[in-house]
Amino acid sequence: MSQQSELDQVVGESLHQASKILVAAHIRPDGDAIGSLLGLGLALQEKGKSVQLFLEDGVPASFRHLPGWEQVSQKPDAQADLVVSLDCSDLSRLGKNLAASTQVDINIDHHITNLNFGRLNLVDTRAVATAEILAMHLPGWGYSISPPVASALLTGLVTDSLGFRTSNMTPRALRVAADLMEAGANLPELYQHALISRSFEAVKYWGSGFNRLQRLDRLVWTSVTQADRRAAQYPGHDDAEMINILASVNDTDVVVLFNEQGNGHIKVSWRSQPGFDITPLALQFGGGGHPAAAGAEIKGTLAEVEAQVLQSTLNYLNSTGNG
Amino acid sequence: MSQQSELDQVVGESLHQASKILVAAHIRPDGDAIGSLLGLGLALQEKGKSVQLFLEDGVPASFRHLPGWEQVSQKPDAQADLVVSLDCSDLSRLGKNLAASTQVDINIDHHITNLNFGRLNLVDTRAVATAEILAMHLPGWGYSISPPVASALLTGLVTDSLGFRTSNMTPRALRVAADLMEAGANLPELYQHALISRSFEAVKYWGSGFNRLQRLDRLVWTSVTQADRRAAQYPGHDDAEMINILASVNDTDVVVLFNEQGNGHIKVSWRSQPGFDITPLALQFGGGGHPAAAGAEIKGTLAEVEAQVLQSTLNYLNSTGNG
Repeated sequence: MSQQSELDQVVGESLHQASKILVAAHIRPDGDAIGSLLGLGLALQEKGKSVQLFLEDGVPASFRHLPGWEQVSQKPDAQADLVVSLDCSDLSRLGKNLAASTQVDINIDHHITNLNFGRLNLVDTRAVATAEILAMHLPGWGYSISPPVASALLTGLVTDSLGFRTSNMTPRALRVAADLMEAGANLPELYQHALISRSFEAVKYWGSGFNRLQRLDRLVWTSVTQADRRAAQYPGHDDAEMINILASVNDTDVVVLFNEQGNGHIKVSWRSQPGFDITPLALQFGGGGHPAAAGAEIKGTLAEVEAQVLQSTLNYLNSTGNG
Repeated sequence: MSQQSELDQVVGESLHQASKILVAAHIRPDGDAIGSLLGLGLALQEKGKSVQLFLEDGVPASFRHLPGWEQVSQKPDAQADLVVSLDCSDLSRLGKNLAASTQVDINIDHHITNLNFGRLNLVDTRAVATAEILAMHLPGWGYSISPPVASALLTGLVTDSLGFRTSNMTPRALRVAADLMEAGANLPELYQHALISRSFEAVKYWGSGFNRLQRLDRLVWTSVTQADRRAAQYPGHDDAEMINILASVNDTDVVVLFNEQGNGHIKVSWRSQPGFDITPLALQFGGGGHPAAAGAEIKGTLAEVEAQVLQSTLNYLNSTGNG
């Protein structure tokens, strides 16, 4: 692993030599994008670096309890002498403003699909989160993990692992989390903020979807309408993560959620258990996704789309011999 | 800490000298009771001990994926030459059959309320779970942590910490979890079984409760009826843990759930945020509990009990100056 150690050292030296650093993470930022950005950014600032934090889509309200979030800018600054990309598998994930004009010097990420688009590429696919990579390397590069840095990094680790439960969890990730607690991060509080806390409106909206839950053998589905969102005063057009709860219903092979949009279309989300690849179903309806999580937006009324999609899904389950 | 080390050693010797051991945990067993019981029991068996595993209420269906569960007996055996109590704060928690006739030799627990009722009392209140205490001591006592032992103990740790998020979480508990993964426990699978997996009927039943959600300032409440349970074909009379989801609704001080029972009574559950002690409310209605979680069973119709309890709860919130 001397090659890895050498890369590690070169990345550390690059950070050390730079004085004006642009740190950026991906569009539609999640907890790991934000936690990695703030974690690295604040650590560099504490050593006297001039750091610009960049997220094209800004920081969502649900992460504005993290120290330093108000420094995050939505406009890139061309003046930096070093550009660091975090948690992005390819350059386009940085957003159109930055991607067009920027050479990335250091690309730090944990996605297996990373395209190694940086001058230096510190990509560790065994890491549960990009924040885990930073927590492991910062001390060796000479940056101490202060309580605000630890809080940001632990948020990244907790969110990307859904509370330490994704299939890629490792003993190392748990030990890094323990180290971050000792460095001053309040695990229960950060966890509550990032994963547990729910709005009144979201839970009321869940009521509509769950009340209408139906099953046929190992296929489970439900729907939510525009009227449901109005009744619950739920502000978004999304499903308030209902699909993730449906995916945890036991004794199912496939779950489907129909979400009525305002434009004569129905958004359909599928989730499946291992052994059931639902990508062909989503492709058939002009959508896409992964074997275990796919979606499509289909023109029609709720009743029409439900009938078509349920029939196709049943046909698919029957054709696999498990339906 | 030499006193602690001495106790540790004496407990280890007692286990070593015994050949017929009764291991017992508490009534209405949770994941830590079952995980600790199976973890210690299987470790002793692997060293050739004759072990009887005892739970007065048996093993609930949701934990029957753990190796060894089918050995658990609901009848105590008077023939043991050593009795170990796990996760019990007092003798009565073992159940009426065992508590009446048994001298406990070794009492292993993490509750701060533990009465030290054993001949030897290994009580560590910094532990998140009794399973954590066992995981830390078994190797020193000469018992290796096999994959089935690790799976049982990690189940105890994951469930008592609600997925590593309770306010008593420690770096040590995370590191013990990491060790148990390395000893062969599949964290994502055990976590899914213990905390994530839900029945179709429970989620449909949630729909009724969440659909009816109401709020007045920082007080949030809802109700579930016998008709709701019939419509969802939900088998229990409980709330399917709806109260725990209500407790995670943000911008609340107190949440209340009204659960219509079949006997002309309404079961009322309160949960509160720090700073709001709801015990007086529960006591006022003949119930009890803790500052943040209390309950009562009140005679009357749903409408009558809702009106009384909401009025009292509002009065209480106003009297604290925060309502």
